[in-house]
Amino acid sequence: MTDRLHVPIHLRWGDLDAFNHVNNATMLKLLEEARVRVFWMPVGGEEAPATAVIETGADARHLSLIARQEIEYLAPVPYRREPLDIQLWFGKLGGSSVEVCYEVYSPAGAEPQVLYARASSAVVLVDAATFRPVRLSDRMRAAWTPYLGAPVVFSRR
Amino acid sequence: MTDRLHVPIHLRWGDLDAFNHVNNATMLKLLEEARVRVFWMPVGGEEAPATAVIETGADARHLSLIARQEIEYLAPVPYRREPLDIQLWFGKLGGSSVEVCYEVYSPAGAEPQVLYARASSAVVLVDAATFRPVRLSDRMRAAWTPYLGAPVVFSRR
Amino acid sequence: MTDRLHVPIHLRWGDLDAFNHVNNATMLKLLEEARVRVFWMPVGGEEAPATAVIETGADARHLSLIARQEIEYLAPVPYRREPLDIQLWFGKLGGSSVEVCYEVYSPAGAEPQVLYARASSAVVLVDAATFRPVRLSDRMRAAWTPYLGAPVVFSRR
Amino acid sequence: MTDRLHVPIHLRWGDLDAFNHVNNATMLKLLEEARVRVFWMPVGGEEAPATAVIETGADARHLSLIARQEIEYLAPVPYRREPLDIQLWFGKLGGSSVEVCYEVYSPAGAEPQVLYARASSAVVLVDAATFRPVRLSDRMRAAWTPYLGAPVVFSRR
Repeated sequence: MTDRLHVPIHLRWGDLDAFNHVNNATMLKLLEEARVRVFWMPVGGEEAPATAVIETGADARHLSLIARQEIEYLAPVPYRREPLDIQLWFGKLGGSSVEVCYEVYSPAGAEPQVLYARASSAVVLVDAATFRPVRLSDRMRAAWTPYLGAPVVFSRR
Repeated sequence: MTDRLHVPIHLRWGDLDAFNHVNNATMLKLLEEARVRVFWMPVGGEEAPATAVIETGADARHLSLIARQEIEYLAPVPYRREPLDIQLWFGKLGGSSVEVCYEVYSPAGAEPQVLYARASSAVVLVDAATFRPVRLSDRMRAAWTPYLGAPVVFSRR
Repeated sequence: MTDRLHVPIHLRWGDLDAFNHVNNATMLKLLEEARVRVFWMPVGGEEAPATAVIETGADARHLSLIARQEIEYLAPVPYRREPLDIQLWFGKLGGSSVEVCYEVYSPAGAEPQVLYARASSAVVLVDAATFRPVRLSDRMRAAWTPYLGAPVVFSRR
Repeated sequence: MTDRLHVPIHLRWGDLDAFNHVNNATMLKLLEEARVRVFWMPVGGEEAPATAVIETGADARHLSLIARQEIEYLAPVPYRREPLDIQLWFGKLGGSSVEVCYEVYSPAGAEPQVLYARASSAVVLVDAATFRPVRLSDRMRAAWTPYLGAPVVFSRR
């Protein structure tokens, strides 16, 4: 099985909607935060995984934009103090884009873990000034290839 | 061409993220609000379209849950005071679920309109107590059939 | 009584939290949107009140920052399709800051209106590059003085 | 000096607004999450501080409602991977309400810490069915008294 990045993401009670579980749109906010932690270069002594090679900040030459997302919700997500275990890998490394794949699990440590959702995002690297796609750098490919595997398979399409 | 519901949804400046356009996850919040306005029975003299036949409130026998969503982002969405023109129709009316299709356009009235995003949601009607799927009622089918058409076609899948 | 600006702000069902009324922090998002509509210069043919004289966009010389906020919640706010009636005026026009006062009412038109919340924000005009306070312009003072009145009185301090 | 609860709260990049720092209203979401972690009884083996004595869930007899909030923003909050250090104590334990006081600091461990904001919330304990105030229990008073101290002093009122 593909190596996966395990990103612990804390819920907030405010992520729940009036149905008392994590809101469907808010789930994509959680995936966004997982991406930020996996991709963005650390600043000021932050700890970050080896995949965190995208420049950020006002001087960054590149931006990463979301072109497409797909998500299946498999079970309602309750509020818990422990962080969700968001597992992340790459379904494809293209010329200037990547397919990020996710499975969202209940907190690590408690068995069995519940699979709450599976999802994918097409992320395009663009020039920060012109918004034109730019090629992934050798450094990016090298950093991300260890987590390249089969794309997520959706059951409901 | 299929008849579509046109739902005006106001942006908030707070929908923008640090990239200064509407956040990708927040786009699903806008779709959610369009669904609520299209589907939920009016209360206390509210105006609502003829499709608004799903009961709400503490006594409601049914809930509508999101099983799946897919979205393509075609252009960045800037903040504007005028409401977006979210166009909504049905790609499928199943036994206990529907496929809701959307195109998100810049505000109506200004020509040409910009197509910002296309999306679809699988919505399942469930029993409010047991969370088991329940069949769409005849009233629902009658209310929604006029907006039944070809599902949204995604270009990037 | 002071003249007030009446800003219609649409709720979203997603503004509710798991207690099934508008979340306490989200109330400040609604006030933010009311401020944006009252203060920010219109672009591209937008309609805006005469108070909308603060430049926006990448070239803007000034930013308006929030230094302080206070809010009292008087009644839970349910979801409704019609916009809330947010009433807004100035409690003070200082050298480089203003005190914005608000009362948040149920939708206009239905009698009697319910007062949901009262609030105030200290807004400071700063230089966009240095973040140093800058003096309100004559144009700002002229535009805002008609809505200058007694500050909001909080009952629970 | 009063004993304080130190609650680590992770930011999300999505908490930033188009000005590229944590949004003013979103700051109250962070305070909300700090309160939840401090006050709500743990479920299913969660770790929680000794102050976590308010029942939650569908069977809870009580709800805690926010009656009032006040906040001063002292410095813009950037996104960081490490959690903010939200310090929390009680300014008052009343008959059926408490005043919760907060100071929001940059992540613990880096010296010197930056004080980003100070705030207070009036929280009222109410009956879940009638929404009438109910008296704090002896257990609540005993759990919270160790963190009772001088209320936050606001500099800009």
